[in-house]
Amino acid sequence: MKDSELFMKKTDLNELRKDPLLGRWVAVLNRSMPPSEYTMPPQDAHEETCPLCRGREEEAPKEIMSIREPGNQHAWLTRVIPNFNPVFKIEGDLGRRGDGMYDRMNSIGANEIIVESPEHGRPPEDLGLDQMTKVILTYRDRITDLERDPRLRYTLIYKNAGRNAGAVFSHPISHLASTPVIPKRVKEELDGAKQYFAYKERCIFCDIMREELRVGSRVINETRYFMAFCPYASKFPFETWIMPKRHSCSFQEIRHEEIEDMALILSGTLKKLRSLFTDISFNYFIHTAPNRVPRKDHWHTLGEDFHWHLEIMPRFLNTSGFEWGSGFYILTTSPEDASKYLREA
Amino acid sequence: MKDSELFMKKTDLNELRKDPLLGRWVAVLNRSMPPSEYTMPPQDAHEETCPLCRGREEEAPKEIMSIREPGNQHAWLTRVIPNFNPVFKIEGDLGRRGDGMYDRMNSIGANEIIVESPEHGRPPEDLGLDQMTKVILTYRDRITDLERDPRLRYTLIYKNAGRNAGAVFSHPISHLASTPVIPKRVKEELDGAKQYFAYKERCIFCDIMREELRVGSRVINETRYFMAFCPYASKFPFETWIMPKRHSCSFQEIRHEEIEDMALILSGTLKKLRSLFTDISFNYFIHTAPNRVPRKDHWHTLGEDFHWHLEIMPRFLNTSGFEWGSGFYILTTSPEDASKYLREA
Repeated sequence: MKDSELFMKKTDLNELRKDPLLGRWVAVLNRSMPPSEYTMPPQDAHEETCPLCRGREEEAPKEIMSIREPGNQHAWLTRVIPNFNPVFKIEGDLGRRGDGMYDRMNSIGANEIIVESPEHGRPPEDLGLDQMTKVILTYRDRITDLERDPRLRYTLIYKNAGRNAGAVFSHPISHLASTPVIPKRVKEELDGAKQYFAYKERCIFCDIMREELRVGSRVINETRYFMAFCPYASKFPFETWIMPKRHSCSFQEIRHEEIEDMALILSGTLKKLRSLFTDISFNYFIHTAPNRVPRKDHWHTLGEDFHWHLEIMPRFLNTSGFEWGSGFYILTTSPEDASKYLREA
Repeated sequence: MKDSELFMKKTDLNELRKDPLLGRWVAVLNRSMPPSEYTMPPQDAHEETCPLCRGREEEAPKEIMSIREPGNQHAWLTRVIPNFNPVFKIEGDLGRRGDGMYDRMNSIGANEIIVESPEHGRPPEDLGLDQMTKVILTYRDRITDLERDPRLRYTLIYKNAGRNAGAVFSHPISHLASTPVIPKRVKEELDGAKQYFAYKERCIFCDIMREELRVGSRVINETRYFMAFCPYASKFPFETWIMPKRHSCSFQEIRHEEIEDMALILSGTLKKLRSLFTDISFNYFIHTAPNRVPRKDHWHTLGEDFHWHLEIMPRFLNTSGFEWGSGFYILTTSPEDASKYLREA
């Protein structure tokens, strides 16, 4: 979902369709773009007209939540609004049904914009520790709130920074998408972790952290509660994962002291990436357990086999037919070398 | 794998590493690129110096095969050479071994460039029917040859056309990558098709073609032996699949009369895409059965559950954190509308 889809014309409910071969769902927008629109350059909003800036709140959809300056209720620091033209919409029923041999449902869910700062052009690594802490608090509160809706199975928080990463706006924002199905990429992680747990009776993510600390060569940074490292078999060069040392399947169960610490390691890692690559584009996203999975009980192992984390994906090179046709990736810089560059940055 | 990797410095054997969570393999290049090289623009070879042009054969690696003009053995029409700096290399053993908790092996395989025409700047849709037939013949002969190597499990033929699709060179080429593992994306298709077959006792691809012919709204084009359509749950807008009507799991078992017919429908579809989008970038790739799968026997169902095909993926929009974090895709033009535009193009 590109930022440019933010301002598309409002339409009726979109449709979700299931790929019969791979089991993946796709969203089909109700209003089809004609070929001519594909060549139009994406439109950024200039600071003078940006509807995400402080003072222009009435030009944006109605606020869902905000964190405000203590003692000044007019001055918001972070703010969440619905997407201008959401792909997933909260009203309606799931409407699961067949379509010939295929399967479809309504595109129920939530699509929100998390405005990370009132300042228009602030780069994410320069938000400052206090502000980054508030951004992470905002992430947590939105996931916690949306988890109450029984139709929603998953909430993904993600960020697009830079044109190559799908960003259009200069105003610093993150995105939120809640979906009525567990997304394929998340399902694969859950399944992989479950399989490992079934065999080893240990969390694969905890094992990965222990292994990375033992080897050391792929670790970038450690704080009290988190570690940042370049995964052994990354998809993209300089890919970095940030993982909580305390085992927990759910991001929304993060503790207060951990939030500040996460802000520290996330800001630090983004600063390091920027110091190596001035014009870097990147995405990051949080992978947490699906909604409505009971996370605590004293006799089963629910929640023991997953471990939430944040993945940062630098977007340098265009993927080619090789990656799309095979799902096989080529790392032009080894995780060990990438980690060394980042450690020393 | 970008075309720009064609000319990278020669190094020793690269390494394959397995993602412990998702089971996906990645190739780690032996010579790591430093951060500074990521900002360098890719270098195209001008026509005056292009080592893929006729007359400059000695500047390229030694030819593997070629199709030549009848009666003129100096004039090649299509030509296959090893990649200038292959990611996968034919010499050596697999060397599967552990690496702490992880798994690795040597990057054994093949990496070839299929030069589609002696003419430097010829766009793929303008190769002409005769030449496209020879390109497809070349694809078939290379897959057939590489299938004999018992270390290789899969051969992927793919094409990058246009900068957004990872292409760097103006000379028309396709790529070939043979790998010692079945790539994840192919494995998922095989598994999906097998699951469907187990339940329905019918090939899912044959069922999809029947359904598409029944509905009609997603069909672009039909020839005697092939059909082209926009899949019900495409990943990208204007994505098009070309599928043989005759059930066959292996592209390399294509019949002579089918090759010409495939050239016709592939050229025609690419022409249609170009007429809608002047500057289109796209990838295409062939999905065929893995090597060493017995394809015929009279009492089992081997080969009955897979059906080779070619996928064309237009590359308009940057993918964002949403797609990478979720594996969920958003179609800005419905397959029905895309198919209508293409039918009428």
